[in-house]
Amino acid sequence: MTCLNTTHYLSQPHHDTGPAYLLGTRRPGAELTARVWVPAPWEPERIILRQVVDGEPTLSAAQLVARTDAGAWWEATIRLVNPTNHYRFLLLTPDSDRPYVWFHAAGLADHDVPDATDFRVLADDDAPDWVLDAVCYQIFPDRFSAHTPPCERTAPAWAQAHAWLDEPPLAGDPSGAAWYGGDLDGIADHLDYLQGLGVNTVYLTPVFPAGSVHRYDSTSFEHVDDLLGGDAALARLSQALHERDMRLVLDLTTNHTGVTHDWFRRAITDADSPEAGFYSFDHYPDQYVSWMNVESMPKLDHRSGAMRDRLVRGPESVTAHWLRPPYSADGWRTDVANMTGRAGMVDLAHQAAADMRATMRQVQADTGRELWLVAEHGHDASGDLTGAGWQGTMNYHGFTRPLWSWLSHPDPADGLNWLGIPTGIPRLPGGPISRGVREYAAHMPATSITHSMNLLGSHDTPRIRTVVGSREAQLVAATALFAAPGVPTVFSGDELGATGRTGEHSRTTMPWTAPPGAAPTDELGSTGAWGPVDRAVLERYRHLGRLRHELPALRRGGMRWVYADDDLLVWLRTHPDGDALVALARAGGATVDLPLGCLPAGTVDAVYAMDGVDITASGDADGHLTVNATGPGSAIVTLKAALPRTDKVRTH
Amino acid sequence: MTCLNTTHYLSQPHHDTGPAYLLGTRRPGAELTARVWVPAPWEPERIILRQVVDGEPTLSAAQLVARTDAGAWWEATIRLVNPTNHYRFLLLTPDSDRPYVWFHAAGLADHDVPDATDFRVLADDDAPDWVLDAVCYQIFPDRFSAHTPPCERTAPAWAQAHAWLDEPPLAGDPSGAAWYGGDLDGIADHLDYLQGLGVNTVYLTPVFPAGSVHRYDSTSFEHVDDLLGGDAALARLSQALHERDMRLVLDLTTNHTGVTHDWFRRAITDADSPEAGFYSFDHYPDQYVSWMNVESMPKLDHRSGAMRDRLVRGPESVTAHWLRPPYSADGWRTDVANMTGRAGMVDLAHQAAADMRATMRQVQADTGRELWLVAEHGHDASGDLTGAGWQGTMNYHGFTRPLWSWLSHPDPADGLNWLGIPTGIPRLPGGPISRGVREYAAHMPATSITHSMNLLGSHDTPRIRTVVGSREAQLVAATALFAAPGVPTVFSGDELGATGRTGEHSRTTMPWTAPPGAAPTDELGSTGAWGPVDRAVLERYRHLGRLRHELPALRRGGMRWVYADDDLLVWLRTHPDGDALVALARAGGATVDLPLGCLPAGTVDAVYAMDGVDITASGDADGHLTVNATGPGSAIVTLKAALPRTDKVRTH
Repeated sequence: MTCLNTTHYLSQPHHDTGPAYLLGTRRPGAELTARVWVPAPWEPERIILRQVVDGEPTLSAAQLVARTDAGAWWEATIRLVNPTNHYRFLLLTPDSDRPYVWFHAAGLADHDVPDATDFRVLADDDAPDWVLDAVCYQIFPDRFSAHTPPCERTAPAWAQAHAWLDEPPLAGDPSGAAWYGGDLDGIADHLDYLQGLGVNTVYLTPVFPAGSVHRYDSTSFEHVDDLLGGDAALARLSQALHERDMRLVLDLTTNHTGVTHDWFRRAITDADSPEAGFYSFDHYPDQYVSWMNVESMPKLDHRSGAMRDRLVRGPESVTAHWLRPPYSADGWRTDVANMTGRAGMVDLAHQAAADMRATMRQVQADTGRELWLVAEHGHDASGDLTGAGWQGTMNYHGFTRPLWSWLSHPDPADGLNWLGIPTGIPRLPGGPISRGVREYAAHMPATSITHSMNLLGSHDTPRIRTVVGSREAQLVAATALFAAPGVPTVFSGDELGATGRTGEHSRTTMPWTAPPGAAPTDELGSTGAWGPVDRAVLERYRHLGRLRHELPALRRGGMRWVYADDDLLVWLRTHPDGDALVALARAGGATVDLPLGCLPAGTVDAVYAMDGVDITASGDADGHLTVNATGPGSAIVTLKAALPRTDKVRTH
Repeated sequence: MTCLNTTHYLSQPHHDTGPAYLLGTRRPGAELTARVWVPAPWEPERIILRQVVDGEPTLSAAQLVARTDAGAWWEATIRLVNPTNHYRFLLLTPDSDRPYVWFHAAGLADHDVPDATDFRVLADDDAPDWVLDAVCYQIFPDRFSAHTPPCERTAPAWAQAHAWLDEPPLAGDPSGAAWYGGDLDGIADHLDYLQGLGVNTVYLTPVFPAGSVHRYDSTSFEHVDDLLGGDAALARLSQALHERDMRLVLDLTTNHTGVTHDWFRRAITDADSPEAGFYSFDHYPDQYVSWMNVESMPKLDHRSGAMRDRLVRGPESVTAHWLRPPYSADGWRTDVANMTGRAGMVDLAHQAAADMRATMRQVQADTGRELWLVAEHGHDASGDLTGAGWQGTMNYHGFTRPLWSWLSHPDPADGLNWLGIPTGIPRLPGGPISRGVREYAAHMPATSITHSMNLLGSHDTPRIRTVVGSREAQLVAATALFAAPGVPTVFSGDELGATGRTGEHSRTTMPWTAPPGAAPTDELGSTGAWGPVDRAVLERYRHLGRLRHELPALRRGGMRWVYADDDLLVWLRTHPDGDALVALARAGGATVDLPLGCLPAGTVDAVYAMDGVDITASGDADGHLTVNATGPGSAIVTLKAALPRTDKVRTH
């Protein structure tokens, strides 16, 4: 057996911030035990922990606590002194060709490295525990299900009524007006269906009245849009969810309002009103700062204390209101969080995030319910995920982008937007993909990864099915979604193989067979607005949802990269109850032989091989495992619990 | 000619934030022109600039503005919208094996990268222009020169008098008491000597009264220690320096005071005094937070507004006082800046830095003199160098550490402290060294590098001569010091080949031949406290000081890495008046052939080859340059101005 093979990461020392490698309660003053697994061929003479305390690096020796044929366990003590505590390890092996190696969250380095990629752990990590077990389902309320037939309702002037199974518009001005008539009671009608998918958390895009169906141009934060059933329907939905131990996440726009918002109307008609200070006027009242210079969305000015009190700060704020009964939302997704509070030389983004978080802590203390705060932050959010504000993001940058650019169809559909970059979606090899994911995750507290939404797409993007162009590739993407650290978040309809070329176009309706207003049933038609319903995909989502709930390693395990080549990605989720190996192949021909014997315990427990991937586990003592792909596919392989085996030989 | 050779970086596209590649005035609202040089074989179809504005990436096309046989110039517009503006480039070359390449400050990447290593430029960069031309000389006042004979002065009780040429103690408790008797008038006596070295800036470690010769345990910030000549001597020194257009930097301890400081004595004797709030007491008055738990240095609490007003904030503060006439210091070096304001869950480090900076801006506005603010921050300071506080650091992490670990003696002296890491100083190959330096610099605004002190050692470290163990290696280090971006800062005595194994031991005196009290002369004896004076080193420092002043590229040029192997490092300082190539060899046998033809203009102007390094410039059109080392040595090669040649063929 060789554990020095450089084509896979199993040969490298390992630590992660999951429950198998970082032990203890994360509260100020606590001491955590950090474990490092060092495969046998390394044999460092010393391992030194470097932790920065009060701005100054402090050094302490890690202890060798157990040794097996496969390698050795070292342990060091992390002290939770500062709000964010960061650390890395120095491995000293004087007589080798690697005498001086830093081991940090981005990997191994043969030179001094910046602190930016240190492992980091928050002293006061109050991100909800339930989020670790969450499977989330994103609903665009106009498009999921109509309990009250649209024809029985009075549509506002801006709305252009569409038949339920019409194809959504591709893009452009009229699209925000395309009204299909879904409502909140329609969602409550289908909770059996959602639970059948393994979903236990529902995230709704905005429900406040607005001038469009997307409702990011709100006219008020005080009530739920009557078109969706009003306040009472939200209370009913919340109650129905909570009766099933499901949770509800709402969507708040903290960066801007609609131009017809009550606040803005008062602002421009009364220069002396408090609301006039909620916005920034270059020339009152007709020239004002707006989101991306879109005049219909005037930007809120977080320098205004009165605005902060109204929107995000304190018990009377909008933020607090919808978290309390009878609405009892379990969290907020914050729209355009990356821009909130930022305008030119003013940067109050961290203040805005801290405002919301503090308000939510208050409500949490009052109600005893743990609350989740997620930022829409489509790019590198690491500078804003410091632990003091947002608990996570919609993780486009660390999950969606890399997965898309690995799985995108070699001959992609025309005009697909590469998440903002004006070029087609590239198809990149797996090596760079894994490096990018690891580097990005290394830039933030682990809790910011586990408490982020992983997405294959959303109401703002093309559909995953369209990006990857085939059922086979979508199924690979689905395994990634359910087996990566972070909250699997399914955009409603993805599980049916829905397609869509733009955000607008992807907002397809669900093809329930019962017509609006009839007794609800979860039965689906054979065709949606996008074409045939792909029941094989639906069954796979259900299967993966079950696996996520059955295997603690998938929900709560640490993350370890194992292998990456052009067409094959392999990672390990580490957990005291047993690790889970995850293999994804985007094409046939990919194969790798993995020496599981480099792990503390590499005994295979169960194999879930899907589609084009085969797993062969050798019977010999070295514990080899071969991944072989005859076509796109994936596998999840559980390993027997590793830690007890080393506990037996523990020397102290 | 091939520009795709991967053993040197000349084949890669280039941009830096120096005056050849980033043009325009750095003020809010300005638009800068960013140039990218792309060697011919690349031929990207498009280059897209990605700049984050108000938290959101914005994309714009770079324009191809000129093309030569060697390559092409592209230009993009950077808008200075936010306090820090960061950007990178996407190179799209669809039909190549590198279709999708990000070019950021840390290099090229084949995958999406975090923003942490974007190029970054401040909108409101008021770091002093004079610092770019500074050559700094660090003086430990007790050890440079005594104008008044120590025997004529009354030493305080703590002082243990030493003869001027005694070897300083190695370490330990008595060392802070070892009094040699240097004074401020003694410094004024030797300004000719300093100017002969090219020095134009003098940095003094603390001059306030204290309980030791290092004076980091001050008893007052109100007066200069009488042992050094008192307030009047500082005023005289300042005047003498300014008459020669030289500048003065003082040293302030913002993290703590001495236990005998006026403030602390009042704090512990009067619980109701304002000073009682200047410190943090776990149990009043005998248990208090102190620096590194050293009881003699109680830590200042930056939560106290009254303390901030006294020390760092506003016109009455200590910070302002010594910058005003008659003392007129030109800047502060701030002691333990990395820990200032940080204690457990409280982190006011950025506030403390911003306090000092704001106060200095006020004084600057009043006096019209540009002021420099430098942090002692011995480790990764990038998180604290955001542009709003410290303008630079003592750059141990980005300069001293990598250079030491490249040039350290293969058989090092016993017990040398590796800047905090409890192991000997490693000797690492040049490849990792160059990567480490580049990565670190990529994490901060360029102005934070150019406005940092580069050091080969200081009063806190072993001497460079002891670290590298030979004259030859010290001369290589000296070239690095004078040819790197950042302020060359010579620790007094290094230029004589002084040795020292610890910080204490390195605080050697200068062996002036005139005895204390006699008429001053700059004549040096043949032996210092450390052994023979090495006049060859002194002559080299003088030569390098002249080169620094003669070559704008060395002072103000951008930084480009060219080549790194085990024993050879080559970089280029880019400047509109002509680039300067810098080559360092730590051993004979190192050689490289560099295709200067990959540069916009690679015509050699002048060659300064030193010691074991030879330079051969080929006469052919491709402009090759060969660096060949027969032993340790260095070279500086100036190239003819590149930019006019491309301006001629500019297409718009």
